[in-house]
Amino acid sequence: MKTERVRHETGSEGRLPGLPVITLLTDFGTADYFVGAVKGAILSVNSNVCIVDITHEIPAQDIEAGAFMLLAAYKTFPRGTIHIGVVDPGVGSARRPIIVTANDQFFVGPDNGIFSYISAHRTFHVTATEYFRPDPSSTFHGRDIFAPVAAALSTGVAPEQFGAEINDDVRLPSLETPLRIIHIDRFGNCVTNIRRETFEGNSLKINGKTISAVRNFYGEASAGELFAIWGSAGFLEISINGGSAAQILGAKRGDSVSFT
Amino acid sequence: MKTERVRHETGSEGRLPGLPVITLLTDFGTADYFVGAVKGAILSVNSNVCIVDITHEIPAQDIEAGAFMLLAAYKTFPRGTIHIGVVDPGVGSARRPIIVTANDQFFVGPDNGIFSYISAHRTFHVTATEYFRPDPSSTFHGRDIFAPVAAALSTGVAPEQFGAEINDDVRLPSLETPLRIIHIDRFGNCVTNIRRETFEGNSLKINGKTISAVRNFYGEASAGELFAIWGSAGFLEISINGGSAAQILGAKRGDSVSFT
Amino acid sequence: MKTERVRHETGSEGRLPGLPVITLLTDFGTADYFVGAVKGAILSVNSNVCIVDITHEIPAQDIEAGAFMLLAAYKTFPRGTIHIGVVDPGVGSARRPIIVTANDQFFVGPDNGIFSYISAHRTFHVTATEYFRPDPSSTFHGRDIFAPVAAALSTGVAPEQFGAEINDDVRLPSLETPLRIIHIDRFGNCVTNIRRETFEGNSLKINGKTISAVRNFYGEASAGELFAIWGSAGFLEISINGGSAAQILGAKRGDSVSFT
Repeated sequence: MKTERVRHETGSEGRLPGLPVITLLTDFGTADYFVGAVKGAILSVNSNVCIVDITHEIPAQDIEAGAFMLLAAYKTFPRGTIHIGVVDPGVGSARRPIIVTANDQFFVGPDNGIFSYISAHRTFHVTATEYFRPDPSSTFHGRDIFAPVAAALSTGVAPEQFGAEINDDVRLPSLETPLRIIHIDRFGNCVTNIRRETFEGNSLKINGKTISAVRNFYGEASAGELFAIWGSAGFLEISINGGSAAQILGAKRGDSVSFT
Repeated sequence: MKTERVRHETGSEGRLPGLPVITLLTDFGTADYFVGAVKGAILSVNSNVCIVDITHEIPAQDIEAGAFMLLAAYKTFPRGTIHIGVVDPGVGSARRPIIVTANDQFFVGPDNGIFSYISAHRTFHVTATEYFRPDPSSTFHGRDIFAPVAAALSTGVAPEQFGAEINDDVRLPSLETPLRIIHIDRFGNCVTNIRRETFEGNSLKINGKTISAVRNFYGEASAGELFAIWGSAGFLEISINGGSAAQILGAKRGDSVSFT
Repeated sequence: MKTERVRHETGSEGRLPGLPVITLLTDFGTADYFVGAVKGAILSVNSNVCIVDITHEIPAQDIEAGAFMLLAAYKTFPRGTIHIGVVDPGVGSARRPIIVTANDQFFVGPDNGIFSYISAHRTFHVTATEYFRPDPSSTFHGRDIFAPVAAALSTGVAPEQFGAEINDDVRLPSLETPLRIIHIDRFGNCVTNIRRETFEGNSLKINGKTISAVRNFYGEASAGELFAIWGSAGFLEISINGGSAAQILGAKRGDSVSFT
């Protein structure tokens, strides 16, 4: 007797039914056994999945960094994708495990704000322990709770079956205000929280330096010139050709940005 | 004409037949072509597999570290999983390639002790060169021997078909005694080799410092307090809230632990 | 109604039809959302694929390093594999997106030389924007152009359908001459560009030091001895037992090698 694989629809361009996709975003690093153990726990429930690492290098316990990274990555994934986000300083305490649904995707992790930048979402408090691994540890809910819950979602279990909907999930402070640097990437680009709808073509001031040029692509700028550019995450970024804008500006996450 | 995929059973919770799972644990790092080449060699034999990286950041040639990491990760994987473990200072010499079977899983790698923490196992000396890549190099058995052998296992070839069973495979010194620190994780937690069955609720002494509190989860401890906690790998760990226990204790792997 | 998965042939040993394989080689690092976003863009077109990371740690904008790494890794992959190579300092400028076909494999990326070490290839200029993501950014063609093009290839679209064949694709300087170090790996081995057909058993000179021993495997050499060995990428490498040859030689990529 043959059981059919659960097939999920792919995105708007999709021509083919596909493997369900489960992504991982954590602060576990990649030198330890943590990520492997989470994947094993997923595959023990459903090994007909495509597991994707977004990153495991969120700075330890930095929920805000995790929330931004997930926001920047999730939109390219197909409908039905299940994202596990584990930056979880409160593991083992009373903080709730949750499932968030938004834009036909699912998010599984702790109720500490990590999913709060995902707009217009519904939240479910996961209480159905029959989906957990037996005897879950108090230090590794990524493996013992979030992984098997995500895998169960990938087999077609509906979010409602894991617990009641809630309206008081934890939210981080607004990503919209005040104007600031919300991320510095590996190339030293400074990502601000300015979106196209809030930008009026003004010059910007950061740490006393004025940036007035808006460029369309990196090569358009002259060497050593600080410039603004619409970045791939949808926000205005400050860059410099052949160098690190963050270093030149002495900038770090949270630094204030103003229009001039 | 359509060939059916080989389907492996998933773990105890498994409802669905799944892709066979092959994991990788090496000291190759991720900056070089080594890991990619191993995966290509697997996929050239069978691309209907789910390949999972446990870690590639085992310190170069540190067999003991590799053995612990595999022990800590493998149990969450489904029945039938094939683990490739390559920390292999003796590559090209007379050391034997082996397949180990234990707990309905498979382990493929060099006979140098890397699988010796996996309990109650049978070992096969791989001599059937028809499963190797043509003209295997003497410097990269991960790609030329272990990868294609693991891939052949994933298509349903039985361990017996690769060579004779042996009883003299290389073993590392016992993981049970003496009491010591066997791993320090990325958060600075010190993993000891104390298991629940060998712990009698005593205080511990490490590098002259006494640890008497056993906590149930991290948040239960007060700031700056060293405490013991049952870790997710099944061993007692020494932790500190908001810091690195290893740093506070000046501890490194191998340091002695005693009951007081 | 059930749509069949596109199945690609596996390599010469292949017994089973398999998932199409898409590999990634970039300078994106793994701490950011870049790699995750590329994978999401692939999976939104086709999630019945096996995605493999070759590496994301090519030094930023180092096209030559990327070209070598791809050369060293691609040959183990099965027929039909699609390699995405993104080291792309000219992103957003007029440099062309291309598809290269060679050895029954596909290569997708910018026309800047990154595929020029792949021998005997045909090149197609990708102009069919209907395969791009809507409104492609000018800073992230990995996500918006190369990923969906590679995914379309994996569904069976022929290279000719993406644009016209060209003969003036950008090529890096020859990998064959002058004799030099072309890569230093994580273990400090110095990979030269000497192949078996160009080596006549001579001694080598690097930075004033002579290396005359050619060993068959690492353990054959005495401790502290510099020796040459045929490496797994097909080139002669300089190694030292239990140390870094690069450090001992003060060697870096590009350093001259001569026969003596």
